[in-house]
Order: sequence, then C-alpha cells, then structure tokens
Amino acid sequence: MKKTIGDFLLDRLSQIGINTIFGVPGDYNLQFLMQAEKRKDIKFVGNRNELNAAYTADGYARLNGISAILTTYGVGDLSALNGVAGAYAEYVPMVCLSGAPPLHSINQRSFLHHTTAEGNYEDVMNCYRSYTVAQARLTPQNAVGEIDRVLKVCKREKRPVYIQIPSDITFFEIDVPDDKLVCSLQMSDSLQLSNLLHGIKERLRHAERPAMLLGNAIDRFGLRELTQELIEKLNIPFATQSAAQAILDQGLLQWVGEYNGGASVRSVLDIIENSDCLIGINVKFTDSNSGYFTQNIPENMINIMPFSTIVGKKVFEDVCAVDLLKSLIKNDLSRQSNLFSSIHKNKKHSWTVEKGKALILNRFWTKMDHFIQENDVIVTDAGTSMRGVRGLALPAGITIINQPLWLSIGYSLPALFGSLMAAPKRRQILFVGDGSFQLTAQEVSAFFAHDLNPIIFLVNNKGYTIERSIMGLYSSFNDIPEWNYHKLFDALSDNKPYSYYQVRTEDELETSLEKLENDTLVPRIVEIMIDPFDIPKKVQDSADRIASFNYGKRGLKELDKKVHF
Amino acid sequence: MKKTIGDFLLDRLSQIGINTIFGVPGDYNLQFLMQAEKRKDIKFVGNRNELNAAYTADGYARLNGISAILTTYGVGDLSALNGVAGAYAEYVPMVCLSGAPPLHSINQRSFLHHTTAEGNYEDVMNCYRSYTVAQARLTPQNAVGEIDRVLKVCKREKRPVYIQIPSDITFFEIDVPDDKLVCSLQMSDSLQLSNLLHGIKERLRHAERPAMLLGNAIDRFGLRELTQELIEKLNIPFATQSAAQAILDQGLLQWVGEYNGGASVRSVLDIIENSDCLIGINVKFTDSNSGYFTQNIPENMINIMPFSTIVGKKVFEDVCAVDLLKSLIKNDLSRQSNLFSSIHKNKKHSWTVEKGKALILNRFWTKMDHFIQENDVIVTDAGTSMRGVRGLALPAGITIINQPLWLSIGYSLPALFGSLMAAPKRRQILFVGDGSFQLTAQEVSAFFAHDLNPIIFLVNNKGYTIERSIMGLYSSFNDIPEWNYHKLFDALSDNKPYSYYQVRTEDELETSLEKLENDTLVPRIVEIMIDPFDIPKKVQDSADRIASFNYGKRGLKELDKKVHF
Repeated sequence: MKKTIGDFLLDRLSQIGINTIFGVPGDYNLQFLMQAEKRKDIKFVGNRNELNAAYTADGYARLNGISAILTTYGVGDLSALNGVAGAYAEYVPMVCLSGAPPLHSINQRSFLHHTTAEGNYEDVMNCYRSYTVAQARLTPQNAVGEIDRVLKVCKREKRPVYIQIPSDITFFEIDVPDDKLVCSLQMSDSLQLSNLLHGIKERLRHAERPAMLLGNAIDRFGLRELTQELIEKLNIPFATQSAAQAILDQGLLQWVGEYNGGASVRSVLDIIENSDCLIGINVKFTDSNSGYFTQNIPENMINIMPFSTIVGKKVFEDVCAVDLLKSLIKNDLSRQSNLFSSIHKNKKHSWTVEKGKALILNRFWTKMDHFIQENDVIVTDAGTSMRGVRGLALPAGITIINQPLWLSIGYSLPALFGSLMAAPKRRQILFVGDGSFQLTAQEVSAFFAHDLNPIIFLVNNKGYTIERSIMGLYSSFNDIPEWNYHKLFDALSDNKPYSYYQVRTEDELETSLEKLENDTLVPRIVEIMIDPFDIPKKVQDSADRIASFNYGKRGLKELDKKVHF
Repeated sequence: MKKTIGDFLLDRLSQIGINTIFGVPGDYNLQFLMQAEKRKDIKFVGNRNELNAAYTADGYARLNGISAILTTYGVGDLSALNGVAGAYAEYVPMVCLSGAPPLHSINQRSFLHHTTAEGNYEDVMNCYRSYTVAQARLTPQNAVGEIDRVLKVCKREKRPVYIQIPSDITFFEIDVPDDKLVCSLQMSDSLQLSNLLHGIKERLRHAERPAMLLGNAIDRFGLRELTQELIEKLNIPFATQSAAQAILDQGLLQWVGEYNGGASVRSVLDIIENSDCLIGINVKFTDSNSGYFTQNIPENMINIMPFSTIVGKKVFEDVCAVDLLKSLIKNDLSRQSNLFSSIHKNKKHSWTVEKGKALILNRFWTKMDHFIQENDVIVTDAGTSMRGVRGLALPAGITIINQPLWLSIGYSLPALFGSLMAAPKRRQILFVGDGSFQLTAQEVSAFFAHDLNPIIFLVNNKGYTIERSIMGLYSSFNDIPEWNYHKLFDALSDNKPYSYYQVRTEDELETSLEKLENDTLVPRIVEIMIDPFDIPKKVQDSADRIASFNYGKRGLKELDKKVHF
C-alpha cells in the first residue's frame, strides 16, 4: 500500500492509542501539521510553550497510556527536554516528534536557523539520547522500519522515544504494510519462569512474615490489577513506596502504609524490614523514598521488575512480571494472617470547622481528607503540596499524578491539562503552590480553550516554602513576586465562566468547597492564603534530612538558628 | 589566602564584571545562594523559570559583556538549555552555574531526586557539552584551576560555559591566589600578522571596488570601534549581515544597506558581489542571512574572524582581529571613492496620520522610523517583529538585541528584563508578537519587581502570523488562545503604576506614543491590534523562500492557493 510518510506516522500513532498530539508549531513541522489537520482520528493541540507541551503529554499519558508531542527542531526540542527527562525518570511513555530541517540540509550539514550553524546535526540528538530509549531520524528509505521499531520500544519500555522528521519528506509516498502495528507482549523464558515460581512458592510456604512492597510505574506496566489480585490471594500485608501511592485502594485490609526507610512509622518499618519473604514490585530506592537511604531491606528480597526478577543478588532475566504474577495468582498460596490487623495507615482526621480561624496547612489537608472522592484524579506539584497529598487518607479508585523522583516544579499545571484531555469526565484536582504555579502559568488558558473543569487548589504562601524549610527561611531568594492570581485567571479565561475563591479562614474554605460542588462544569480555583512560614512538622523533618544530606558537615543549618523551631 | 569555594567563585564572577546572577533557587543550590546573599558586589535575582533565566542572562550579557545564571541540577539545567543553546549560537558569553548533588553522591552514583536514578551523572553534562565551550565539575581540589580555566574560555570565546557546584562543598575553605583573574587578550603570531597585513594592503592598493561586509558578534568580540575606524579610514562602502544591523551608525556615509544574498537590493548586491577586494568581519552565511544560500561572494574574500583570518581557501591561524584591525588602521590606506554616494539604504518613510484608519503593519513600522531615538535599545522577538526592525531607518547609537540565527520564540521578553538590568537608564523598546509573548509571559512581573521602565509594543494579531505566511494560513494550529493582555499586566503589576494603550487605528497609535513619552518612569505597553492576515510583502516573499526550501518539491505551497496574494 502507498502512503505518505506523514500519514503513515499518523496512522501508527493512532493505532497505538494516541488521538491528541501536543506541542508548538514551527516552520520545520508545519507541513506535517497540515497532514494531521486533515485527519479525524488524531488531532494537534497547541501548548503555550514546549516545556508545557511535554508536561501536558506526560499528564495525558498517565491516563491514556501513551502520548505524543510535536516540536520544531533545536529551539523546540531543547525547550521540551526537561519535561521529556521527567517522563524518562518517571516511566511515562511519550513519543517526541521533532520537525527537523530538510533531509538534504542535514546531509549537507547546512548552516540553518534553529541550529548553531556549525553543521552539527548530532547535538540535539545527543541531548535526546540521554532521556529517550530509542531515537530515529526518518528518511523515505527507513521510515517504515524506524517508526515501527521506535514506537514498539516506547510501548515496551514505557519511556520517551524521539523521532526527527525532516520537513521535506512528509509528503513522499512510501510502501507501507497493510497490517496494524502489533506491540506484542514479551514472552518469558519458560524454564526461568518455572524455576523462579518454584523458588518463590518455597519461600512463601516457609515464611512466617511475608510482605509486599510496591514500587514504580506499576500502572504504566499494566501490573495494577495483577498485583491487587495477588495480594488478595496471598492475603499478606503490603506497603507502598511514594511512587505507588494509592495505586491500589488504600481501603484494602492488607495495606499497611507508606514505606520510606527510617522515616516510616514503626509498624510499617517492622513489617517490611523484618519480613522473611519480602516481594517487591519494581522497587527502587532513591533519596526521597528511603528516608535518605535509611532503608534496611531483607537481603533476599524478591524484586519483580517488568522484564526480570531479582532475588537477593541473583538476577532472573527474561521473566516478565505479567507472566510471573499470573503464575503466582494461579497457585494456591493463600494464607491466614493477622500481622496487619492493627497497624497504622493514613486515617481521616476529624474536621470541625473553627469559624474565623486562620487556615494552616495541616488543617487544610485534614479538610482534603473529607473533600476527596472515589475515582478522583489528584495532580500535585513538588513542595508542600506533594507532602500534603502523601499524608491523605484516600478513597478507592484514586489516580495520583506527580513526579516523586524528578520533582520538577511547574510540572503539575500543564500535566493537569493533559490528564483532563485524556479523561475529561473524571473529577480532577490540582494541588500547586504559588512558587511552582508561576513557572508554567501561561497554560491556564488551555482549560478555557478546551472547556475543561479542573479544581485547582493554589496555595499562596508567597514563595518557595519547601526551600525555606531547607535553607534560607527568611532569605529573599525564596521570595517570588506578588501576583494577583484572580486577575490572572480572568486575563486568560477568554471571558468564559469560572469560579474563584480566595480563602483565609477555615469557614471560608468550608463555604468555598460547598459552592464549588455545585459548579461542576467550569474551572474552579481555590486560592488558599497560607503564612509563608507555616511549615508542618513532617515537612520540616524531611527538610532537615535534605539539608543534612545536601550540605553535609559544612552545612549552615547548625549555625542558622532561625530555621530551628 | 584561605577562602570558601563559594566565595572564591563569587569573587571571580565579580572580577569579570558580573554583578547579577539570574536563575531559580533549588535545594542543591540554596547554600551557595546563602553565600551570595552576604555579598555587596554581586546579587542573585530570581526568574519565574529557568528558560526565562537563560534568556534574561542573554539580554544582560548583550549590554554588560558577560552574564551568569544559577539553576538546580537536572530539572533546572535542562529547562534552561534552549536559552543556553541560543547564547551559544549567537555568541553570548554566559556562565551557567548548576547547584549539583553532593560530591559523595556523584562519586557513589547515588540514586537521587532530580536525576533519573540510574547512577548516571554524565547525562546533564553531556547535554551541556553540546552548547557550552568549557565545562567543569568542581571539587575542593580542582576548584581554583577549573573556575579560572572555564571563566577564561567564556571571556575569550564569547560563548556559554557550564560549572557544576556540588551542594556540599561551597563552604569548604581552599587556598586561593591573591591576584585578580586576568583574562589577557590573545596575542597574534607576528609573522602571520605581517604577512597577512602585507597581502591585504596589496589587495587594497590594486582594488578598484573594495568593500566590507560586517557579520556576527562584532560588539561581543570588542571589534565595533576598530571596525568603524577602519571603514572611515579606508573610506570604502560596507554592507551588514542581519546580525550586524546597526552595529555601526547607519548614518555613516559608507553604509550601503543589508546584504542578504539574492534577496538584497541590487545596489548592495552589486557592491558586495562585484567587489575585487571584499573584507568581511566575522562573516558566516546561513539560510536566514543569505536569501537561502543565494549569496555569490567573491572567492578571494578576506574574512577577518576573531582569532584567524581566511583569505579565499587559505586560513591564517593565530591572527587576532583586534591586532589586524589596529594594524590596518595604522597604515595609510585611505582612498577616494564615490561608489556608494547614491546607493540604497533604509530611509525613513514619511508619516502623516490618517485618522480612523485601521493600523496595518507597514504603517506601524513607518511610524517607528520616527519614534525610535538615538541610543535606544531595541529588543525583538522572531517573526514579523524581527522583519519589521530589519527594515527600519535607525539613528546612531542603537543596540539591537535579538537571535537572528537561533530564532527561539519567547526569547525577547526575558531578554529585555536582562538588558534593562544591565542598562536601566537607556530607553529600551521591545517588539514582540502575541504568539511569542505567550511563551515566556510570566516574566512580566520582573519589570515591576525591579522598577524598570520598558516600552513594549505587543503586536496582537491572534497567532503565529509568520507561520501563517509560510504554511497553514487559515489553519487552527497557527491560532493561539485569546488573552486579555491588559488584565494580564494588571495581574502581574503588584499594583504598581504602568501605562497601557490598546491601539487599532493610526491616530490611536499617534496619541498613545505622545502620551507615553511623558511617562518615562514606568512600564508602557502599547498593544497593537493587527489583522492576523496582514502580511507585508517582504515577509511573504521571505516566507515563500522558506516554504520552498523547507518543503521542497513535494511542498504543499503550490496546491495551497489560499496563501498566494
């Protein structure tokens, strides 16, 4: 079958489940956009800048399974890079399409705009090599093979890939296969699988204190349902790393809480660290999910990763988590257990409004325990917002969208735009501080342009409070300019309706929440006025660990008495 | 002498002329910021995000000679990268400081936040290698040597450099030299210089049609005054590439206009292409300054570059432009010439306001011919704004700040912030389209936070008109959301005074310009309402060349009748 390269690429994107491409037009991608414009199965949605586009695509992929961005070569690609790197760090599949200079210019090393005019056409590619799992520069000869190869890697590895599309080739016709792209699941080696299965069953059979620990990207690798089934079948307690928060219903009897190394509550720490058969699902320890490397994990942990399993120091390659989990579920391994009947987990604190009382963060989060509903999507930026969400007692069906590892401030607002585009009918709630909000604020107009209806809690505490808690409590570098956020939303609303509440007291919060539940069709913003120095104890404890780790023995923290409460 | 690493670095930055560091705080750079906070000679100024910081530093360096940004590792570094790459492409010296994880973590390949948690501490460095001319990761042992090495390269090459500062070492004391950093000018090889000088003199002596062509970064390499002196001494005609617009007074009798390959006016083309002794100053041909490679330059052009000179195919290394220009000026080479007495150059068109007449771009630019004053700084974004400025008849002493090669939209607003910080007393004027403005709009609050007084012409033509002219005249991908820009400025003004004019007609423009001249202490914004399809002929001609080059024989342009006027 004959097709143009552009249409073949669009076909393939559509076939793997992408119906929206985010990005920014530029002269090297305009003709490809003309091709996209004619399609009914896939559309282009412009962002206000390329970094925002990457964040948006990240949010979209969290709920849609995969996403795509389109930028223009050089300027656009590099602007998006931090968002792509975040998707790489957090295992978010994203197809990065770059409208590149014409093929003859690349081959002749021409000195063109959007390049450094030194004939170097590898520099942008080199940057993307660090943060994508496959790359291609299309030609009429390689297009079919390269497009399919790269998209398959994206689907399999759940990480970004990068495709350069020379501007002059998208209308060339090539021979393309009739079949749709099949991204078959990888199969496991059967001997490896049966050996491993046997070993795990033995371990479980003799275990007195089996437990599970849930790690990264469990939903992206399609392991959520299987993990839940296994846990319920085994009936053993499980803890979650921060990246797995609410990945399973926190109401499950077997859930014991968050494991965060030495910063965990004692009962969770005991269940995980003293387990004689700890089964991890894609567990990885980083500073921020291990209480700064104070984890003390049984040496013989069975860590089930997407395509291999590690038992202690032995690695079983070519074992797919899907196969292994299914096999484990099939076996009769269920057991009685009461180890987890009385352990700690996040609990809803009771809420009785104190009229006229200035709102503080801890009380705000208590109220959120009651406000959040089943099946909500919760998007959080870094900083006190992410900390607050980590402490919530959540109902079932919650999806949490954040960057627990990459922690790029400004991520959340565009990510919310993307997640809303993927699931406009779910109730979606953003928690973002003013410091983070300002980085990507221009994307606000997207909610109005696409008639989306987020709930946005904008924590106005006049700067980077999370950084104040680490270093420079009163330092001006942690201040930000005063914006009038209400007017900003007004400026970007295109005269469409929205609700805006500025809240200083507990009763104002209460009232605004009641009102916004009646106004579900429009964006609803609740600006929470919080003292810049309102630093919850948990945040300060964590900040002290960060400062101690980051600044070491010569750290100022000891001298800087002001930061001690 | 004993000093902390942080203070030594700050000393060195101060010694090379940096008194402001732009950037965004993050947990890996907070302790370095505490050191900066205590200084009187250097201060930190926060931006709204890191890309904006890089653009701001670029603008600052244009008027200050050199600049610095501070970001936090990974997230911040990558966000800034496109701005750094622009500075690399356009020869803007910028010291990029990254607050990196603690040295022990880097050495142990720890899995930390703001990394991809794979132990890879070369990925960010690799990205910066493409767009900086020197890089260092500081340790207590190498700090003195590396800081001095890298800063010297920045000063010499006029391009960005990159320094990673592990968060835990800035308070360590090291032995530092007592002397200030001396960035000595490079010396030329005397034989090379005298041979070259002899050859050029011979060429000039026999030339009947000598001419000069001014290229890149002439001011950054300190060649402006020498170039002017030589031109006046030789009394020969000179043309400018787009990057050299107004680098010398356009009122100079010897200036003949812009050379842009086959797109040049005939008289300029004749003077340059038929010269029998063409002397270039740092000339380089790219698509956008050569009418898409239609230049036809004499093969034996003498191209004087900063550290070498090329004559035809011979390269004379180790000859500094400064030395060569000085030697040429010293020699008695002056000559009579009348070749350029009657040639074309930009002329002020006459302006008589037509009351009630809707403003069009061509008329707006005619008015600007009369509005711009001696010694103004003109900052322009890409798109129709840059095209408009290229056609202006400019008075003496103008500085133009733009990215004629890298052409990253959104550059100009933060660059204006930086250039104002470097020279707050010069009158500074921005021309930016709404499409570009939206990318970096959050930096508006900086003008108010720092009491700056720019004049901003915001061309509201509802989208990317430059791209409409290339491809997709009526396509929705070239649309942008409607913002209320007046309300946006209000939202970001912190209740400080500013003037705002929305202008639809010629007389409204006239009136607003009269008013804003009386209001010189505050930001003044003139929003020009322009039809989205108002595409001046010169813009369309250039767009047609771009489309033809970018999309080639399979280009849609021929089919897309709508774009033909």
